[in-house]
Amino acid sequence: MAAHPSLESTEGLSKHRIEALSDGIFAFAMTLLVLDIKIPKLPEAAVNAGLLVPTLLILWPKFFSYVTSFVVLGVFWVGHHGYFHFLKRTDRWLLWITLLFLMFIVCVPCSTDLLGDYPHQKVAVMIYGCNIIALGLTLYLQWWYATRGHRLVGRDLEPEMVRKGTQRILTGAVVYSCAVLFALINPTISVILYAVIPIFYILPSHLDHHWTHSHG
Amino acid sequence: MAAHPSLESTEGLSKHRIEALSDGIFAFAMTLLVLDIKIPKLPEAAVNAGLLVPTLLILWPKFFSYVTSFVVLGVFWVGHHGYFHFLKRTDRWLLWITLLFLMFIVCVPCSTDLLGDYPHQKVAVMIYGCNIIALGLTLYLQWWYATRGHRLVGRDLEPEMVRKGTQRILTGAVVYSCAVLFALINPTISVILYAVIPIFYILPSHLDHHWTHSHG
Amino acid sequence: MAAHPSLESTEGLSKHRIEALSDGIFAFAMTLLVLDIKIPKLPEAAVNAGLLVPTLLILWPKFFSYVTSFVVLGVFWVGHHGYFHFLKRTDRWLLWITLLFLMFIVCVPCSTDLLGDYPHQKVAVMIYGCNIIALGLTLYLQWWYATRGHRLVGRDLEPEMVRKGTQRILTGAVVYSCAVLFALINPTISVILYAVIPIFYILPSHLDHHWTHSHG
Amino acid sequence: MAAHPSLESTEGLSKHRIEALSDGIFAFAMTLLVLDIKIPKLPEAAVNAGLLVPTLLILWPKFFSYVTSFVVLGVFWVGHHGYFHFLKRTDRWLLWITLLFLMFIVCVPCSTDLLGDYPHQKVAVMIYGCNIIALGLTLYLQWWYATRGHRLVGRDLEPEMVRKGTQRILTGAVVYSCAVLFALINPTISVILYAVIPIFYILPSHLDHHWTHSHG
Repeated sequence: MAAHPSLESTEGLSKHRIEALSDGIFAFAMTLLVLDIKIPKLPEAAVNAGLLVPTLLILWPKFFSYVTSFVVLGVFWVGHHGYFHFLKRTDRWLLWITLLFLMFIVCVPCSTDLLGDYPHQKVAVMIYGCNIIALGLTLYLQWWYATRGHRLVGRDLEPEMVRKGTQRILTGAVVYSCAVLFALINPTISVILYAVIPIFYILPSHLDHHWTHSHG
Repeated sequence: MAAHPSLESTEGLSKHRIEALSDGIFAFAMTLLVLDIKIPKLPEAAVNAGLLVPTLLILWPKFFSYVTSFVVLGVFWVGHHGYFHFLKRTDRWLLWITLLFLMFIVCVPCSTDLLGDYPHQKVAVMIYGCNIIALGLTLYLQWWYATRGHRLVGRDLEPEMVRKGTQRILTGAVVYSCAVLFALINPTISVILYAVIPIFYILPSHLDHHWTHSHG
Repeated sequence: MAAHPSLESTEGLSKHRIEALSDGIFAFAMTLLVLDIKIPKLPEAAVNAGLLVPTLLILWPKFFSYVTSFVVLGVFWVGHHGYFHFLKRTDRWLLWITLLFLMFIVCVPCSTDLLGDYPHQKVAVMIYGCNIIALGLTLYLQWWYATRGHRLVGRDLEPEMVRKGTQRILTGAVVYSCAVLFALINPTISVILYAVIPIFYILPSHLDHHWTHSHG
Repeated sequence: MAAHPSLESTEGLSKHRIEALSDGIFAFAMTLLVLDIKIPKLPEAAVNAGLLVPTLLILWPKFFSYVTSFVVLGVFWVGHHGYFHFLKRTDRWLLWITLLFLMFIVCVPCSTDLLGDYPHQKVAVMIYGCNIIALGLTLYLQWWYATRGHRLVGRDLEPEMVRKGTQRILTGAVVYSCAVLFALINPTISVILYAVIPIFYILPSHLDHHWTHSHG
């Protein structure tokens, strides 16, 4: 790893399998989220009395936390996809940093369940937020490790692009940290912030221009 | 995204990973469907009294809704596959439209469970139908966004083909909307329609001819 | 589909995504099998009394049916892999035949659960066997459809190879049908046959020679 | 299989699908691990009495065994990835050895659950350790089978590299065997060893140098 004389070539461990593992884990985590929405089994008398609709409406906080977490996982999947796009190859360290990132991805259905059950409890709201911050920091670690001295990216990747990518992840981590701290005052504000922040990451960014004009 | 001077090339973000994520989510959603069919654990006395067969037969509405939903997911998977076949590349907006589509795919096991539990309740039948309509509309959105001004497809894709693809999805959305409205009169008619409509989508279409003769 | 003038080329719908969907469903079905082996939660007094080992030993029929079903799924995955190896492209009908095959794959964890719960009941043993026969017949259907008039395979695939592939699948279907019929006399014989038959499919066959010497 | 005259070419059954199946099974097994961490549903009175935090803290052994098993699966995934990197093609025997390996991978969530429930019981600690040893031995079997007479690897793979790969796996198997035997004296020592050993496998090795300088 010390010497890497032939970085421009596609030599070394390909990134295909870590992408496949990531896509599998993302797909499973996204699907697991919906398992928390358990359809209540009402007795027939209750159904005939028209209790099905109000019973389903009670599920809405579960549905809300499902949508929020799906969007959060979507943001990180698109981000991961976008950063890996620039990679030419991987090495053992990057595999392990990505596995650490995936370990926190797998925790998302679990912390979503916690948030859905206790949306007004400081500790639940803060654990959920810390999970997202951990995702941000491990995604940043991947990007930092890969771009440091053009270790795993092409030499033609401009420093400007590296800087913008870094800025984009770290801004998110800082904003989420603020949202977590708000939980100490009012957990509801944090929950609303958690749902609003991802919207800014759905909008196109400077990185997209590069996607369109590069060969990846 | 505004300017895309080199559309004919394979530049830009490849479609490989969004296809992998989609295939993973479809695979899990299809497999999750069967988890609703829970084998009843009878005491040995009941088994010896020959109660196993009638107990299994009681499961048939669950099995029916499993097959229906599997076929519906199959229709949308084949459709998604067929439309993505024409794409040359993806961009951030398409990734997010596809993620929205996948969010409704993940809901299918959930709304199938609802339909299997309450097949005679208006609200359950209508929620199931709306889920399918949402799938149709988000699939249409992908196709519309990708083909608009040949944004993400090759310049050689004839407008005729774009029009036929559009027609095929929107027809389904309209027919399913009618099926949902029938639930107001008689939910059983809707359930039968839900099971019959997919059959028309299994049959070959004009798009297939294009699959055979193009390089994708 | 009627005319396919350019079969030798790789034109048309690629087989990549149906393979990805199949691999995802196989992977999930194989993993779900183990979910039936539920670790019993004993009170501490029972554990201290040394009841953990006998309690775990009671799980052995569950473990046996897990291994059997994993091997059966393995046989069909290797078979599916082997036959798809010869395909040059897919079309809508093949996608749907494969989806039908996958629908029965998804049923395997369910019928394994049934067999594990009622290993001495005719109906459970026969349902399990019928599930495997359905897998054999739908796999045959894929092979028949793809090779009929060299529809989806290369022109260089010898008729001898097609015949051997057909023979291999149909032999399995016949043998499993016999095993199912034995359940009418003694379900235990069927269960033993179910576990023994796959062994013959693990051994190398004539098809393997072709794998080694062709470009697929 | 006896004669393989054209090993340097990419002829024969490609390794793509067995890699896809492996990645899928690893992804599900890793995600399933977290399903054991069940968020307790406390009544509102208990939550208001501040019992949520202590209840969550009780989960820490579950969380510890989750992290340990995730890292163990990570070690084997990286190992599997690293060894398959050198393969040029697969054959039926390798597929089945890999399936055997995957059968033990699928068992990991199950034996992790056992370890998390009974961390002080000899039998639980030893079953978990044996599962990991089985993973090591089946991974070794894949490597041995593939490199024996350069059966499935390129002729340019130096014997030195083969020997180092072998040594790396077998060392792990021996060390884990010792950890299992320690359980007879004190199960806690074994659990600590299980958590510490993987760390040595995260560090870069001689194989990595080869990854960087070869075309795979």
